Amino acid sequence: MNRIDSPGNEKIKLAVKIAGDASRRKKEKLFFLEGLRLCRDAALTGSPIHTAFFTDSALRKNGDDIAFIAERAQRAFLVSDAVGEKLACTGSSQGIFCLCEIPERSREEALDPTGAYIALENIQDPANLGAVCRTAEALGISGAVVCGGCDIYSPKAQRAAMGSLLRLPIFTTDDLCETLLSCRERGMKLFAATPDSTAAKITEIDMNGGVIAVIGNEGNGVSEEILSLCRPMTIPMLGRAESLNASMAAAITMWEMMRPGRQDDNGQ
Amino acid sequence: MNRIDSPGNEKIKLAVKIAGDASRRKKEKLFFLEGLRLCRDAALTGSPIHTAFFTDSALRKNGDDIAFIAERAQRAFLVSDAVGEKLACTGSSQGIFCLCEIPERSREEALDPTGAYIALENIQDPANLGAVCRTAEALGISGAVVCGGCDIYSPKAQRAAMGSLLRLPIFTTDDLCETLLSCRERGMKLFAATPDSTAAKITEIDMNGGVIAVIGNEGNGVSEEILSLCRPMTIPMLGRAESLNASMAAAITMWEMMRPGRQDDNGQ
Repeated sequence: MNRIDSPGNEKIKLAVKIAGDASRRKKEKLFFLEGLRLCRDAALTGSPIHTAFFTDSALRKNGDDIAFIAERAQRAFLVSDAVGEKLACTGSSQGIFCLCEIPERSREEALDPTGAYIALENIQDPANLGAVCRTAEALGISGAVVCGGCDIYSPKAQRAAMGSLLRLPIFTTDDLCETLLSCRERGMKLFAATPDSTAAKITEIDMNGGVIAVIGNEGNGVSEEILSLCRPMTIPMLGRAESLNASMAAAITMWEMMRPGRQDDNGQ
Repeated sequence: MNRIDSPGNEKIKLAVKIAGDASRRKKEKLFFLEGLRLCRDAALTGSPIHTAFFTDSALRKNGDDIAFIAERAQRAFLVSDAVGEKLACTGSSQGIFCLCEIPERSREEALDPTGAYIALENIQDPANLGAVCRTAEALGISGAVVCGGCDIYSPKAQRAAMGSLLRLPIFTTDDLCETLLSCRERGMKLFAATPDSTAAKITEIDMNGGVIAVIGNEGNGVSEEILSLCRPMTIPMLGRAESLNASMAAAITMWEMMRPGRQDDNGQ
């Protein structure tokens, strides 16, 4: 591996920019991962690793894992611990970093019309966004559509998602309306979560076959525009509706989409 | 209202200790709340407010709310903004603080043998603990049993719970084993969540009537000792089990306990 000892090196400056700046991520089509677990996950899942960086200290401690990651990276560098400190986003950095390529999928590639998807409109908190994607992967959801809100490729969302963003198909869009209309044309059912207790109960709607369920922003819920395209559905609650936050509502919605009894109904 | 202008005042020193130190909270049987919403919630729910503190700036901005809180507090003080800074736990403090009494409930008072309870064993992250209690309140769970882990009366857990800890009956114990055995003697069913796929599926067990479901620590799950007292149950997943975190598992478990179809089975 080649070495980089100067924190002023162009490759290091690029990586720092990618870590900190959503518009730069979008422009370069790269995102930043930090830590042994996430970088190893990227190598394991075959995510295209554009560049990998490892500190001298990390190499001494995690030589085998680093060899595994470096082999799968397009380019890999050993860096001084000072450079590692410049790259680190977390307090207790392990000195292992990757720049990965943001996967580019067309709408048709990303969204299988027979699948079950969660759509996240304008979610503000990267920890919520990451946690929802992590749960989606656990429950076997086909993928996530992300529109607006915080950047799902931010280091904070990647950490909260614990590698699930490398495995779960994600389709990001600036126009959720158009995406949903196209899915409806391809035969998918559209639902939107609302606290409105007069909406259809989530336990009583047919979510078999191709389906997208939209979860809205933490404070304001699903926008009027999106709600008008979807069948409103609600999680019936015995307690105080305002106490159910966006990521918990998403977890219960995805669980109901994949709930064993429901899937059996459809012979799946 | 009397004034406190010195950050060295004994009442202020006590409040700072209570905010920062779990053992002091236990000893004094008091906990610390910060912010207009939480302090107003405490007044609204009739939580015994031992002492309330308001900064001059807060009084100018939120006079009506402060009058409402002060009326319900056993004692209330106006404090200088410098004292407010000393009391503040959050970056953007509103200058409104309460010391509230930790409710003391006997096991028999706290746990209705016909209710549906969530028990949290050794949860480490106050944000998880708070979020689970918030969801419990939303779904209409009867209460929570908390054993070990982080302190549910910490300011961080209180913030994450968004007032639900003031309304949801909480029973804290150092001996979950003994609590569960006593509940079983009173006719309650005991379940413990496990990722073990051979355990009974949560969708196929009878959770009507009095029931307690135990959720374990973020890393290690429910302890062997507790698992041996309970019927193991699992959330059947099509995806990667290790991706379901403790608070999401708790949300799905509580949802299944309260799911409308289930309650109907029991004529409720």
